[in-house]
Amino acid sequence: MSPIASFAPPRIATAVPTTEQWDYHEFAFNGPSGGNPFTDVDLAATFSHGSTQLHVPGFYDGDGVYRIRFMPTLPGEWTFVTSSNVSALNGKAGRLHAVAARGANHGPVRVANTFHFAHADGTPHRSFGTTAYSMAHQGDVLERQTLETLAAAPFNKVRLCVFPKRYAYTASEPEFYPFEGTAPCAWDFTRFNPAFFQHFESILLKLRELNIQADLILLHPYDRGHWGFDRMPPEADDRYLKYAVARFAAFRNVWWSLANEHDFMKEKQPDDWHRFGPLVAEADPYGHLLSVHNGFVIFDHWKPWVSHVSMQNGSAVADFGRAGIYRDVYRKPIVYDECKYEGDIDQRWGNLSAEEMVHRFWQGMIAGTYVGHGETYKHPDDVIWWARGGKLHGQSPARIEFFRKLLDTAPPEGLDPIDKWQDLHTVGQPGKYYLIYFGKETPNEWRFELPRQGLATGMKFRLDIVDTWNMTVTQSNGAYSINADTTYRYHADGDPTIALPGRPWMALRLTRIDTGEEIAAVDRVIYGES
Amino acid sequence: MSPIASFAPPRIATAVPTTEQWDYHEFAFNGPSGGNPFTDVDLAATFSHGSTQLHVPGFYDGDGVYRIRFMPTLPGEWTFVTSSNVSALNGKAGRLHAVAARGANHGPVRVANTFHFAHADGTPHRSFGTTAYSMAHQGDVLERQTLETLAAAPFNKVRLCVFPKRYAYTASEPEFYPFEGTAPCAWDFTRFNPAFFQHFESILLKLRELNIQADLILLHPYDRGHWGFDRMPPEADDRYLKYAVARFAAFRNVWWSLANEHDFMKEKQPDDWHRFGPLVAEADPYGHLLSVHNGFVIFDHWKPWVSHVSMQNGSAVADFGRAGIYRDVYRKPIVYDECKYEGDIDQRWGNLSAEEMVHRFWQGMIAGTYVGHGETYKHPDDVIWWARGGKLHGQSPARIEFFRKLLDTAPPEGLDPIDKWQDLHTVGQPGKYYLIYFGKETPNEWRFELPRQGLATGMKFRLDIVDTWNMTVTQSNGAYSINADTTYRYHADGDPTIALPGRPWMALRLTRIDTGEEIAAVDRVIYGES
Repeated sequence: MSPIASFAPPRIATAVPTTEQWDYHEFAFNGPSGGNPFTDVDLAATFSHGSTQLHVPGFYDGDGVYRIRFMPTLPGEWTFVTSSNVSALNGKAGRLHAVAARGANHGPVRVANTFHFAHADGTPHRSFGTTAYSMAHQGDVLERQTLETLAAAPFNKVRLCVFPKRYAYTASEPEFYPFEGTAPCAWDFTRFNPAFFQHFESILLKLRELNIQADLILLHPYDRGHWGFDRMPPEADDRYLKYAVARFAAFRNVWWSLANEHDFMKEKQPDDWHRFGPLVAEADPYGHLLSVHNGFVIFDHWKPWVSHVSMQNGSAVADFGRAGIYRDVYRKPIVYDECKYEGDIDQRWGNLSAEEMVHRFWQGMIAGTYVGHGETYKHPDDVIWWARGGKLHGQSPARIEFFRKLLDTAPPEGLDPIDKWQDLHTVGQPGKYYLIYFGKETPNEWRFELPRQGLATGMKFRLDIVDTWNMTVTQSNGAYSINADTTYRYHADGDPTIALPGRPWMALRLTRIDTGEEIAAVDRVIYGES
Repeated sequence: MSPIASFAPPRIATAVPTTEQWDYHEFAFNGPSGGNPFTDVDLAATFSHGSTQLHVPGFYDGDGVYRIRFMPTLPGEWTFVTSSNVSALNGKAGRLHAVAARGANHGPVRVANTFHFAHADGTPHRSFGTTAYSMAHQGDVLERQTLETLAAAPFNKVRLCVFPKRYAYTASEPEFYPFEGTAPCAWDFTRFNPAFFQHFESILLKLRELNIQADLILLHPYDRGHWGFDRMPPEADDRYLKYAVARFAAFRNVWWSLANEHDFMKEKQPDDWHRFGPLVAEADPYGHLLSVHNGFVIFDHWKPWVSHVSMQNGSAVADFGRAGIYRDVYRKPIVYDECKYEGDIDQRWGNLSAEEMVHRFWQGMIAGTYVGHGETYKHPDDVIWWARGGKLHGQSPARIEFFRKLLDTAPPEGLDPIDKWQDLHTVGQPGKYYLIYFGKETPNEWRFELPRQGLATGMKFRLDIVDTWNMTVTQSNGAYSINADTTYRYHADGDPTIALPGRPWMALRLTRIDTGEEIAAVDRVIYGES
């Protein structure tokens, strides 16, 4: 992880500005400050590059300044022209020169290979998320500490709320509020507070510099009417969502999470979410990932605007054979964004052992899905990572980092179950790469045995024994040569059995080590029998 | 089970006919026999009863005879009038007197309480199905034996194919073919063979007399082009489905299963199934249950015309915490119609032990879902129950019967998980009734402990220890009185521990034995915390 470097936002250019592909540039315009600029003034721009046109909403940023924040999706020359119901803002034209992305800038994350993710430039994104819901509402000192922690942590995504949170361990008032008005609940929902959003954007930008996806929770129930942001009228909800998209969509690291625990927002009905989803999808020029996270009622993730499944069901990653069930249902990436938290609080959702948290990451991965981390250790000042950020105190992040690095050599197309209803321990790509995980079992040996899909006699594999808790990788002997000796499962020449240490949390990694013709000859066999 | 009694179909009445509600009556009309009556002639009737109107399709039954087969859904006076493009069949009017249903006639099965089933008169239907795909194409002797076996078996549903099956262990030609033409594959898909359908209906009627639901598989892949019924052109598929609905819908015991293993019918595309479903739903005047069974690709069961989930995923009922996952996704009844079969054939889908088959029934039930049976023991003449029917040889049916009878005292509203992601062993109705299942675990004791939902201090329960394999029910002591002593899980006064025999396949049944005010005071608590 790179240290936190310069967090200065890009400046407003005066001539033909230049920016990097998937970075952003802001175009600022002076306009009316009287009346209510948030509701009276419409502003947008159409950006063009060859046959590509993007409709980019603008926003009022206070003090008579209107902005259009644009993320070029292609390198080269872009032109734009504005449209507005205010003549001073209408018909403004301009240009932007986008240079190729460099370094760690791989563009926004998209769905790839049905069940997985990749950046826009094709770089795989294996989601290893964490949760710090209210990290952006803690004041400078704690917010900086949180970002420093993230810079040294293994996570490439963080779930955070746009609105402040009021819940167990999180009762303080924030420095900024999203609307004009008076705390706790006298708000003018027609007037946003630019300072709130500017501050939030500074966090987004810092996460972007750390190459961390910001899984933005646009609405949440942890307000219970205290501020009332959980029970705004429909037109205020819609206006807020459009304003958030206009401000945030140009950050390449943004994912839209319409809600945390949508069904716990008792003032919202299913129809509201089905209105919010298309509204956000249509307003966003860039097609960022878009999901809805559940409490007890799982969302209708089959809706076409839902990009991936953001699932709370810790039970599904607690044992074998569960996590993959949602894959077949939705045919989208599955992210267990809340599988309970490593910690020691009394609530049963907040006292997983570190071993159990790491186990859940493995359970998710061997089912071809992804898991998010959270931490809830008691703290004298109630600075608990899951809610406020701060420091990590648990034992799981080091193992999660080990796991993430272990996958650096895994196939870029992602890990999929090989024989989904028969072999619940094995994931990989048939004939190329396998991870086999034993969880709480403590085997003393493993008979070399793989599902037949994609295998043929003579293929050679390297076998590594992985201790997922002690973070070791040990190669077993030399190459193992496949023998297609039985109907459903193939073994290795000599039918070898490999010694294992009789401890829990062990895994195996098998990597194909002969290449070329043989691989080409063996197409993946897609479940040839009933 | 009642013995097989009279199988004579209802006769065609000449004056004002009388039939029982949810029985059927046939109205016959003479019409043209020239040309192609199957394609040239449209016939339907509108049946009226007060404000209720049902549009009932008719069908050509050969020899110049057209029939309208009608199942009265209400007792009392019905009138009808026909419509046809042939004047001899158009505008025919008539009456039917329906008397109240009697005896075992509870009407067709519907979805009840979201996840369960009940007959039209409200009688609960707990689905205990079996599978004998080709039982209707085996000739009189074997067909009669199959029905005699079913008469003595615990099953209240059977999955069977309309079209003959050609697969492992099932290679013989049937006595009847559904179309005019010459076997194996020279068919006139525009002309049905009434004898085929009359024969099939005799089987449906016999199943009806046995109170067995006929889960009719309308299309299946076990043809592989031999007869070509798996690859008819779209217009032939549609005509066949409409004809099948016109003939079969008046049987109250019919469920429509559009396909077995829909995705293994490689000539059909998703759009075909999405056309077939609404076609059948619209043609059926009675709204019979309608589902699509999968091979490896799970169907889009969220479609509104899908009444319940017909699932093949044996893995989901093999261990705790899996089967219920689909409930929350689809919010419909889940039926594991293929969980593999009890038997000893080489294929891994056909060699479950009897213990494992019974275990899967219990796994399904404790997740609030339903499971279907099948049997594949080798037989010298390849008369294997799963395909052809005949006799049952396995050990699971007796335990399934025990299980079914055990549930006679369960709440009529169905069994639901009480604390769905936390307690994977317990199902029931909060504060009323619980089943707790241990599966392969062999506990020597059980601490009296229940999820708190619906419970309050002082409620009294009877506790029975159930041996699901040895089929015994043993009461434990007297009453246990609830003590609301901890946050998530409540115990009994004195915190008792109950001795268990240290064997697998054990379960507990807890039945509330104080009634009245206390029950009324304790509303079901729906998951009060996160």
